[in-house]
Amino acid sequence: VCVIVFFSTFLTGHRAVYIGVHVPFGKQGRRRHRHRGHRHHRRKKEKETDREDGRESPSYDTPSQRVQFILGTEDDDEHIPHDLFTEMDELCFRDGEEYEWKETARWLKFEEDVEDGGDRWSKPYVATLSLHSLFELRSCILNGTVMLDMRANTLDEIADMVLDNMIASGQLDESIRENVRAALLKRHHHQNEKKFSNRIPLVRSFADIGKKHSDPHLLERNGEISCSVQFVLTCYIIKNFVIEFMLTNALVPVPTRFLFLLLGPAGKAPQYHEIGRSIATLMTDDVFHDVAYKAKDRNDLLSGIDEFLDQVTVLPPGEWDPSIRIEPPKSVPSQEKRKIPKFPNGSTPTGETLKEEGHHAGPELERTGRLFGGLILDIQRKAPFFLSDFKDALSLQCLASILFLYCACMSPVITFGGLLGEATQGRISAIESLFGASLTGIAYSLFAGQPLTILGSTGPVLVFEKILFKFCRDYGLSYLSLRTSIGLWTAFLCIVLVATDASSLVCYITRFTEEAFAALICIIFIYEALEKLFHLGEVYAFNMHNNLDRLTLYSCVCSEPQNPSNETLKAWGKMNKSVETIAWSNLTVTECLEFHGVFHGSACGHHGPYIPDVLFWSVILFFTTFFLSSFLKQFKTKRYFPTKVRSTISDFAVFLTIVIMVLIDYLVGVPSPKLHVPEKFEPTHKDRGWFIDPLGGNPWWTLLVAAVPALLCTILIFMDQQITAVIINRKEHKLKKGCGYHLDLFMVGIMLGVCSIMGLPWFVAATVLSISHVNSLKVESECSAPGEQPKFLGIREQRVTGLMIFVLMGLSVFMTSVLKFIPMPVLYGVFLYMGVSSLKGIQFFDRIKLFGMPAKHQPDLIYLRYVPLWKVHIFTVIQLTCLVLLWVIKASAAAVVFPMMVLALVFIRKLMDLCFTKRELSWLDDLMPESKKKKEDDKKKKEKAVICLFFSVDPSVVNISDEMAKTAQWKALSMSTENAKVTRANLSPEKPESVKINVEDSPVVKYVDAETSL
Amino acid sequence: VCVIVFFSTFLTGHRAVYIGVHVPFGKQGRRRHRHRGHRHHRRKKEKETDREDGRESPSYDTPSQRVQFILGTEDDDEHIPHDLFTEMDELCFRDGEEYEWKETARWLKFEEDVEDGGDRWSKPYVATLSLHSLFELRSCILNGTVMLDMRANTLDEIADMVLDNMIASGQLDESIRENVRAALLKRHHHQNEKKFSNRIPLVRSFADIGKKHSDPHLLERNGEISCSVQFVLTCYIIKNFVIEFMLTNALVPVPTRFLFLLLGPAGKAPQYHEIGRSIATLMTDDVFHDVAYKAKDRNDLLSGIDEFLDQVTVLPPGEWDPSIRIEPPKSVPSQEKRKIPKFPNGSTPTGETLKEEGHHAGPELERTGRLFGGLILDIQRKAPFFLSDFKDALSLQCLASILFLYCACMSPVITFGGLLGEATQGRISAIESLFGASLTGIAYSLFAGQPLTILGSTGPVLVFEKILFKFCRDYGLSYLSLRTSIGLWTAFLCIVLVATDASSLVCYITRFTEEAFAALICIIFIYEALEKLFHLGEVYAFNMHNNLDRLTLYSCVCSEPQNPSNETLKAWGKMNKSVETIAWSNLTVTECLEFHGVFHGSACGHHGPYIPDVLFWSVILFFTTFFLSSFLKQFKTKRYFPTKVRSTISDFAVFLTIVIMVLIDYLVGVPSPKLHVPEKFEPTHKDRGWFIDPLGGNPWWTLLVAAVPALLCTILIFMDQQITAVIINRKEHKLKKGCGYHLDLFMVGIMLGVCSIMGLPWFVAATVLSISHVNSLKVESECSAPGEQPKFLGIREQRVTGLMIFVLMGLSVFMTSVLKFIPMPVLYGVFLYMGVSSLKGIQFFDRIKLFGMPAKHQPDLIYLRYVPLWKVHIFTVIQLTCLVLLWVIKASAAAVVFPMMVLALVFIRKLMDLCFTKRELSWLDDLMPESKKKKEDDKKKKEKAVICLFFSVDPSVVNISDEMAKTAQWKALSMSTENAKVTRANLSPEKPESVKINVEDSPVVKYVDAETSL
Repeated sequence: VCVIVFFSTFLTGHRAVYIGVHVPFGKQGRRRHRHRGHRHHRRKKEKETDREDGRESPSYDTPSQRVQFILGTEDDDEHIPHDLFTEMDELCFRDGEEYEWKETARWLKFEEDVEDGGDRWSKPYVATLSLHSLFELRSCILNGTVMLDMRANTLDEIADMVLDNMIASGQLDESIRENVRAALLKRHHHQNEKKFSNRIPLVRSFADIGKKHSDPHLLERNGEISCSVQFVLTCYIIKNFVIEFMLTNALVPVPTRFLFLLLGPAGKAPQYHEIGRSIATLMTDDVFHDVAYKAKDRNDLLSGIDEFLDQVTVLPPGEWDPSIRIEPPKSVPSQEKRKIPKFPNGSTPTGETLKEEGHHAGPELERTGRLFGGLILDIQRKAPFFLSDFKDALSLQCLASILFLYCACMSPVITFGGLLGEATQGRISAIESLFGASLTGIAYSLFAGQPLTILGSTGPVLVFEKILFKFCRDYGLSYLSLRTSIGLWTAFLCIVLVATDASSLVCYITRFTEEAFAALICIIFIYEALEKLFHLGEVYAFNMHNNLDRLTLYSCVCSEPQNPSNETLKAWGKMNKSVETIAWSNLTVTECLEFHGVFHGSACGHHGPYIPDVLFWSVILFFTTFFLSSFLKQFKTKRYFPTKVRSTISDFAVFLTIVIMVLIDYLVGVPSPKLHVPEKFEPTHKDRGWFIDPLGGNPWWTLLVAAVPALLCTILIFMDQQITAVIINRKEHKLKKGCGYHLDLFMVGIMLGVCSIMGLPWFVAATVLSISHVNSLKVESECSAPGEQPKFLGIREQRVTGLMIFVLMGLSVFMTSVLKFIPMPVLYGVFLYMGVSSLKGIQFFDRIKLFGMPAKHQPDLIYLRYVPLWKVHIFTVIQLTCLVLLWVIKASAAAVVFPMMVLALVFIRKLMDLCFTKRELSWLDDLMPESKKKKEDDKKKKEKAVICLFFSVDPSVVNISDEMAKTAQWKALSMSTENAKVTRANLSPEKPESVKINVEDSPVVKYVDAETSL
Repeated sequence: VCVIVFFSTFLTGHRAVYIGVHVPFGKQGRRRHRHRGHRHHRRKKEKETDREDGRESPSYDTPSQRVQFILGTEDDDEHIPHDLFTEMDELCFRDGEEYEWKETARWLKFEEDVEDGGDRWSKPYVATLSLHSLFELRSCILNGTVMLDMRANTLDEIADMVLDNMIASGQLDESIRENVRAALLKRHHHQNEKKFSNRIPLVRSFADIGKKHSDPHLLERNGEISCSVQFVLTCYIIKNFVIEFMLTNALVPVPTRFLFLLLGPAGKAPQYHEIGRSIATLMTDDVFHDVAYKAKDRNDLLSGIDEFLDQVTVLPPGEWDPSIRIEPPKSVPSQEKRKIPKFPNGSTPTGETLKEEGHHAGPELERTGRLFGGLILDIQRKAPFFLSDFKDALSLQCLASILFLYCACMSPVITFGGLLGEATQGRISAIESLFGASLTGIAYSLFAGQPLTILGSTGPVLVFEKILFKFCRDYGLSYLSLRTSIGLWTAFLCIVLVATDASSLVCYITRFTEEAFAALICIIFIYEALEKLFHLGEVYAFNMHNNLDRLTLYSCVCSEPQNPSNETLKAWGKMNKSVETIAWSNLTVTECLEFHGVFHGSACGHHGPYIPDVLFWSVILFFTTFFLSSFLKQFKTKRYFPTKVRSTISDFAVFLTIVIMVLIDYLVGVPSPKLHVPEKFEPTHKDRGWFIDPLGGNPWWTLLVAAVPALLCTILIFMDQQITAVIINRKEHKLKKGCGYHLDLFMVGIMLGVCSIMGLPWFVAATVLSISHVNSLKVESECSAPGEQPKFLGIREQRVTGLMIFVLMGLSVFMTSVLKFIPMPVLYGVFLYMGVSSLKGIQFFDRIKLFGMPAKHQPDLIYLRYVPLWKVHIFTVIQLTCLVLLWVIKASAAAVVFPMMVLALVFIRKLMDLCFTKRELSWLDDLMPESKKKKEDDKKKKEKAVICLFFSVDPSVVNISDEMAKTAQWKALSMSTENAKVTRANLSPEKPESVKINVEDSPVVKYVDAETSL
């Protein structure tokens, strides 16, 4: 004889308690939304009211339809579903004879077991149930007594009501009533309690849960997790009767809504444990949980179970080991579709179809047709975020980002300045570069459309300046003035481009172009980092053929050149010192070079003495920096230390590395090359000031002719700026504040003009630095329920990091005393790290890797499911060829035309439409992230299959779940239960005295008045 | 109207064909075994024959019982189950109008889909089914026509018979017969075919499978995979009739046994696809597959499905994304238990309970009580393997192992010799060490009980020799002679230990002791590798305060000491050269040191000139070696290159690294310290020969007194030898040829005597080298079915690697020209690698890691489930304390007593019984591998739960699966099918003309004569 009692207590005093702890209506906003979805369905249901009456005979309703109908009923105040915390308790011996209810598992979203003996919570895992137990559970609910909407005051009262009901229906013998009652009211022991106490056990354990997982996300949702389910499960013989209860109870202040009690013979302990896990897992199911709240009778619950069964995934016994605990997946598909009925045409009535956002299909890139229309829209779009752009920066992560990128940006700016200084004979050098970068950067960070972009110097600009300077010197023109006029023209043209919404052309830059460009820039970055290291090998030459035994004989001394060249003689002539008076062998390296001396000795290299240790030390610094920063960055995913510590270490990874390496370098003392920052804020060249006349000494027509090179510059700047902006704004980054291509270009144009007038270098978006910036500001969700995987939420979009980086850069002049300790190899190591980490997520490299993999080892990339491998390879080869060509151009003298060549990529991509189908290209070349694609996989597959056949017959008409629901009535079950009873009656009752236990004091349950409704 | 036809063709001519391809009875051996298990059950069944007659009304049988009964029936020759290859074909359009059957998925053990578009096979994955489709499948079999044991000649014939049957039963309209027939006989397109052909498609595709996965494992089982299942699935409207076929067919030479055909409306394509996957997965299930072979009627099949359903694991929809393809697990629990009926007392009738092997419980360690009893048993046990010990070495892996360990062993032996030479003033030095190691190693490898152990030199021996030499010098005794007599005593004592089976005491060495020892040795190994590197920093001092500008002024020249010390004057006196004639400033470093000159100059360190570059270059070599060898070793698990290439690279990892590093070092040219091997084979000291007189010049009583230190030596050697042997013989290594502790010790003792007489150092088992040796010989299974994970099979047990390592070592004297290129830092890097890799798998370190992890991040280690965390921590702390104490002893002057202290660990472990329960210790301290424990997890859990309650009622009496089987009769189903028919009849037939297709030529099916039996 199975007896099941099901209670749902909804009480008048109850609501007040809820308000007291700020809980009950937190979820209403979300639920309203669902109602909208149901409105249509309800209307339909209203028409066929006869059907609603026919609920008890579900011959035509599938469980799914029934569930949808149940969920469609109006929420009354008492039946609002809340998020649940579920726990399972088992009646157990403890300290010899005494019973108690011991918590053995809990659920927030995933299952956590008490590892008894281990005395701790297991890792959260996906509850793998056996179908067998689910059927057993179904049988329990089918045959037991279900009591809904019971109004009870205390647990004692509930127990009494249940027992009354059972005895009245003849399911329980009056004689053992007291024993059962005593067992029901035994005290509860919770895993987190040190001592047992059944005062407010649930509250305590719930508080623990809250404490353990108190993150912003959970706090936000705190209002929702206001109910808890208490599952009490045990195995217990009472004169051979199997007694199964399902109870709802309200314990204050955390109300207990549902109570499922299962009593039975001892031998069934593992079986009952599995049934308990099944009902608990059901309660964590979004749909069944709502059904449980709204159920009006036993059949509603059965429908809920059937609907659940209809949705489960099954693992075959021979292919899976059920004892493996499955880690919670990265994401779980939404269960909302189960709640919404399908219309005959297969569409959902919500009308909320997912907006299929195309590539760059945002409003940002629509052509307005008005002058400055795009710019105005950009400003309108970004203005409301301006304040939050500063408030959102209140995070330690931003500080980490500032320190990292400040260190990373300094060196390229200074190096660029140095190279420019060499090229222009000191007209524009390090200090101008630093000042220009700082000025442009500050203005850009404050007002640009996408302040996450970091501005920097680019190779093509350097090449252009070189050519220009050479031209000016050859034709006797004033370089700075001509440069200024070109700059002003360029700025003007940029603004013309802004005015005409030219940035909307950006939408032609597809993933193909974008990735080829990004890959190239990253590779160049890595290449340059390594090249700089190799370059150190030339500067710091070491003696390859040292004979350690002869070290005493080694030296490299300065000496007078024996046959001084003409140049040397000339130099000597210029000196105000007589050559004869020079004590050659006492000269230092610099002096020797100054006096054109000759190095002589076995320790001399080509350009001076061999320099010991520096090169190898630099190599050590370089690679240690790279590996250490990579290691610290990945520290987030390690198991050690609390999450907070790990994520902080991860955020500060690069800065920490730099600090550590500077310290080590200082301690070891090897004179490795250091970062040199100009110490004074004044123009490098004495002939120039901070403002340059665009005409200067040049003829007037140069002002007009300057427009021609300006055109080239404009393309150069437009391409570099916008393609980087596209990379930063890509969908994978989940930016929420929108982009602003027009505003970006406008700011760049304006600052280009300013820089030109002030004789400073020009700056545009720097790809690798910008990607590193974005990567350093990634925000991941902290898990809300135990076991939920952290999700990438987006980027910390704000203006402060960019601003501070460039403010600090401007102030660098005053920080030389600190900066001079930073070894250059460390910074090169940081570049290598940035280059390598920027390569992540570039599909192009994944595809290149495929070349080296046998087909069976290839990862399950989504595009490989739909595009033949050889076509993927062809696509990769084309892209690779483009990349190599681009590199050749960039490395050659024609580097200035590089941006134009990037433009060519767009056309090549266009040509590829000829040899690839549109479907193939959609898989290989768009911006959808992998994960999203996989979700749509199934959908598309179905569509495809339908296309592959010829008819489209409504699949909802012949619904086998209908049949299952009917078979699932299990008419034979009562008979089998009778059989079971007979079998059990043959067993002799063992140790019946163990049933006799003292009645413990009942748990404190208040503010509840009783009123049984069933 | 659903029609299902089920055929099983078993033919007279058939058997001859089987024999022709050597396939059919390959599995019989294994199957006989199962019969034994069933004998009991059959006898029971024979008694209740009335029950067998009652098969058609399964009211009392659970599906599980029915399945067990079906499997218990006698195998007749026609119904022997074979391993199956299953494929699913879907009827599809291709090239416009034409139909064909396209292969869309296949199963050997796991599912592989044709990724259409992708045009390739997916990765094998665990087939996650929906319960819904499984129910639909059940409904198909319940309502369709099942034709078993059909005897047909060709596919045409089968089609005709099926159609006849359907038309006769009124399930198919005569008018569309020809269309259906044509569809059935359409040609088949297989994924691996370039052109379509329906000649022998199955053969070809099966051959492909065989080729792809042709590994020794599969070849062995080749006889078993002799059948294939062809699933033909499509969606197809024929005048609104749903027609579902299940066919068995035999195609030659690979017979097709089962054919499941499902025809239905186009809209149901995805649904039917899922049903197809369900039946295919069922067919890969061990139990259902046997049931399908033996089924006598429809109900048997239904029971098979129900039994399968009863065993499945269910994933709740809200916690899992069904589109995730689950990787096949490492291992799958055996399904045999499902085939064997349980007796009422819950035991299985096989009688084959798993032998619970305790720790070291093998016969090797039992005390015989006879003189040399253990040794004789060891020899008897190992002798039969002696030949295979050489044959088994025929593998590239062994070559890799030889090269790796030769390089690894050389340096310690030579270093040890050098240190011994220093300690004994050249009495015993490098060449003796090399010779002794080679001699002992060869003898040991040839005749020892465990030839996987590598002998080497140990610290305590060195300390002992030092003390002995000092003692002899102080008391004027002949060191070599005294040493020889001690050695001979030690050898004698060792043999006494062998004679008394003392090695059986090894069983007291538990995991606790073993891991503490192994951890200590590994840490010391790592520490020493790093220490040696640091030591280089002293030898190769660099100038920490270089001023690069003043490099021209730096030098370090030899000069005459201004105030020569007495010692110096004495040395000068000895020289046959006048001090005045020495050109001090022209002296090299060696000469300067020889003449007691003084180094003078700004480039001088404490002991001579600063040595540039060497130290930093050594650091680079050291770490590069470590990381490169680790990287190459892990290459096995990468995705690139074919498996063969990867595993070869992985095997040769260390040797490859050494070769690469030697080349790089040679090219860079920095004079890093190199390995110096003695060039001549002669005793270092001129006063000694190769044979030493045990008495020599010593008084006669030294021969007797020598027994006292010999006692110490014996313990020292016994402990070092046996604990390493325990580590090598641990169960995790899955050794198959057994161990031989007595024989090991015997060989060590004998060789110790030989070495003593020849004046060579003593050698015992070296822990880290031995572990590295074992690790380098690991054998993993190649996967047999696609998707099966490789399993660790064992160690390549043989004598050749050990032998060759020591033979090469002996020949090293003649290879100096090559060996002198090997830089020492590279070898130190190899030591670091060996130390670190030997740490793997030591549970102790896993437990130490737990200290740094918050509880929620801790891995799911099996012992954490059963032992409270704080107790685990206490256990770890005790072990750690022991380890630290041991280290202190080893590092101190008392190093000689170190082996005794290891013995003390055993007693500490014994004491721990007081504060830990036996159960806790069984989890923390035994040799069972993790994986095995997890399997037993469930079992123990159940037992525990039963213990926690009081009664043991037979759980098999009330079996809910009985109820499920009855409900699963689905009485309502026929009604619902009727309903579906009515609904469908309302739909207009769409495009009925598409049914009209040409009849293709039928597949070639021969040697089969027809005889329908149903």
